[in-house]
Amino acid sequence: MASTMQTLEVSLGDRSYPIHIGQHLLSQAELILPHLKRKQVAIVSNTTVAPLYMAQLAEPLRMAGVKVIEIILPDGEAYKNTETLNLIYDALLQNRCERSTTLIALGGGVIGDMTGYAAATYLRGVPFIQIPTTLLSQVDSSVGGKTGINHPLGKNMIGAFYQPQLVLADTETLKTLPARELSAGVAEVIKYGLIRDVKFFDWLESNIVKLMALDTAVTSEAIYRSCQNKADVVAADEHETGERATLNLGHTFGHAVENAMGYGVWLHGEAVAAGTIMAADLSKRLGWLNDAEVARISKIFKAANLPIEAPKLGVDKYIDLMGLDKKVVDGKIRLVLQQGIGKSVVTSDYPAEALRQTLSL
Amino acid sequence: MASTMQTLEVSLGDRSYPIHIGQHLLSQAELILPHLKRKQVAIVSNTTVAPLYMAQLAEPLRMAGVKVIEIILPDGEAYKNTETLNLIYDALLQNRCERSTTLIALGGGVIGDMTGYAAATYLRGVPFIQIPTTLLSQVDSSVGGKTGINHPLGKNMIGAFYQPQLVLADTETLKTLPARELSAGVAEVIKYGLIRDVKFFDWLESNIVKLMALDTAVTSEAIYRSCQNKADVVAADEHETGERATLNLGHTFGHAVENAMGYGVWLHGEAVAAGTIMAADLSKRLGWLNDAEVARISKIFKAANLPIEAPKLGVDKYIDLMGLDKKVVDGKIRLVLQQGIGKSVVTSDYPAEALRQTLSL
Repeated sequence: MASTMQTLEVSLGDRSYPIHIGQHLLSQAELILPHLKRKQVAIVSNTTVAPLYMAQLAEPLRMAGVKVIEIILPDGEAYKNTETLNLIYDALLQNRCERSTTLIALGGGVIGDMTGYAAATYLRGVPFIQIPTTLLSQVDSSVGGKTGINHPLGKNMIGAFYQPQLVLADTETLKTLPARELSAGVAEVIKYGLIRDVKFFDWLESNIVKLMALDTAVTSEAIYRSCQNKADVVAADEHETGERATLNLGHTFGHAVENAMGYGVWLHGEAVAAGTIMAADLSKRLGWLNDAEVARISKIFKAANLPIEAPKLGVDKYIDLMGLDKKVVDGKIRLVLQQGIGKSVVTSDYPAEALRQTLSL
Repeated sequence: MASTMQTLEVSLGDRSYPIHIGQHLLSQAELILPHLKRKQVAIVSNTTVAPLYMAQLAEPLRMAGVKVIEIILPDGEAYKNTETLNLIYDALLQNRCERSTTLIALGGGVIGDMTGYAAATYLRGVPFIQIPTTLLSQVDSSVGGKTGINHPLGKNMIGAFYQPQLVLADTETLKTLPARELSAGVAEVIKYGLIRDVKFFDWLESNIVKLMALDTAVTSEAIYRSCQNKADVVAADEHETGERATLNLGHTFGHAVENAMGYGVWLHGEAVAAGTIMAADLSKRLGWLNDAEVARISKIFKAANLPIEAPKLGVDKYIDLMGLDKKVVDGKIRLVLQQGIGKSVVTSDYPAEALRQTLSL
């Protein structure tokens, strides 16, 4: 299996780690072995991904003498909760996994977030490798160390910052991804262009059709540049006090949409797309984006088959749901807004009435 | 209220924090205020401690303009679990607590461990202050950043390393402590002498009667020197890879006792005392302690009204329960043993038969 592999190093001092991006990485045990403390791993996956990729990952590891435990969870955001997390703990304890056991997340963002959180908290922390199998998780949740689960009162309310030893982004896995989920991932790719990289946005406008068709070179490049943007932000601001908050463009609106519709009805990336359009609308009302820029944003989301209209929940419901988001400081809703394409700011300095107008659309 | 206060600084770089030790510290809001990010705290306590001390702590804070949420949990090790943890999360979310809300633990080790773990994981981490009200928690769990909960398959299996902003050890709270719990705390105090501080052990032999009577000066000194010993170890080894493991003298045996008898039947300190006697017995078999040293160890535990005999569980049951402990590396049981009083080692290099003889006593 010939493969071209790109590697990005996320710089976080003694918690730095590499992200390998390319085709057919899953089954290359030699990429994983140097990162194991001892030859024991627990692979956490779900009922959708495991039948497709578990054997490709596990068999080469077993051939190399690694003891592999397989933990297969139900699939879906609805299961990103305490009960499912306990299934991971139970399996680890039943197999007497020790502090030197490495947890491997094989799946999308839900599997990555839960496995990472289990790794952060099992025996107060065990090593952890991410193998994200969706575009969204390859460009988003595999960088930045955010792990966690949902609570009935809010998304990602329980969690920890915890860095993996290694991330493998195997572009081959995207070929089995449902079209809607591919689009949802592209929403996050576009986001990096919008918040801080106008050249990347320009490049995406030229390559969006190839990206949607999973052209190998374009897909790798899009993942690499997305991860690079995110890694740059995270390296500068690991605990989300400053620039990192701009990564949440569209997310405060988007989380309200996901929460109101019930987790899993809208995909995260779909909610972020609609939320980004709302952020653009508010930015325009503040005079920070012009009509042509808003049109470019809508156009690229449309080309990625993403929703550009949020559900009409009513202004007060939006305000209420947005208030629960983590990006609240002293009771005021802070939002990520655009000041042109490729430039974003985090601010709570906008007229309340302008926000209400955006929310009433 | 006149009070003499001693302060110890735990040095952990940008996560350093002070431990204040003395009488009547609880109600001195001015000790707490400088450590708050904003004037909002959630005080977590239990049904035993809250009626005694909640008002003493909360009212001066309210007088100073702090918004105080009170979260009162059922009392006991049996409640150190996921369900009780969720009561904390629920209350924080229902009160829309944000990242700048400080959690304050008011109670013993169980409250400290659970509140610290809630602080480590709520919104991926909020600030945290410890006000330990038992001798055990003042000398043990308030230093070192260990937080967590139990799992049906083992104690403290789920957790995180997370440092508080501040610890207040108010010696007045020890006056309402049941005698058994005072003894359990003294077990940990003695431990510091045994593992690394022969002068402190000598001092304790001379002062054990005064300590059991809660003489003010002796109590403060015992807490200060215990915390100093622990802080020295932790500062050198925050994540428990080296010397820190010696703090677990008696704990591998002790956890087996606690687990077998059902959490809460034996107090932690009682189990540690019996476990320390077992460790001393094994050390003697290896020729590392002489009869006189073993007798001194037994004598001081007896003076503290602590058990010096472990329950007869049978060798295989002990081995099985000890195997689940976190101090296992590559399937071999590592133990903390004595090489004289004031010197301890962590080793798995002992004849299995010697361990079996100790366990069969």
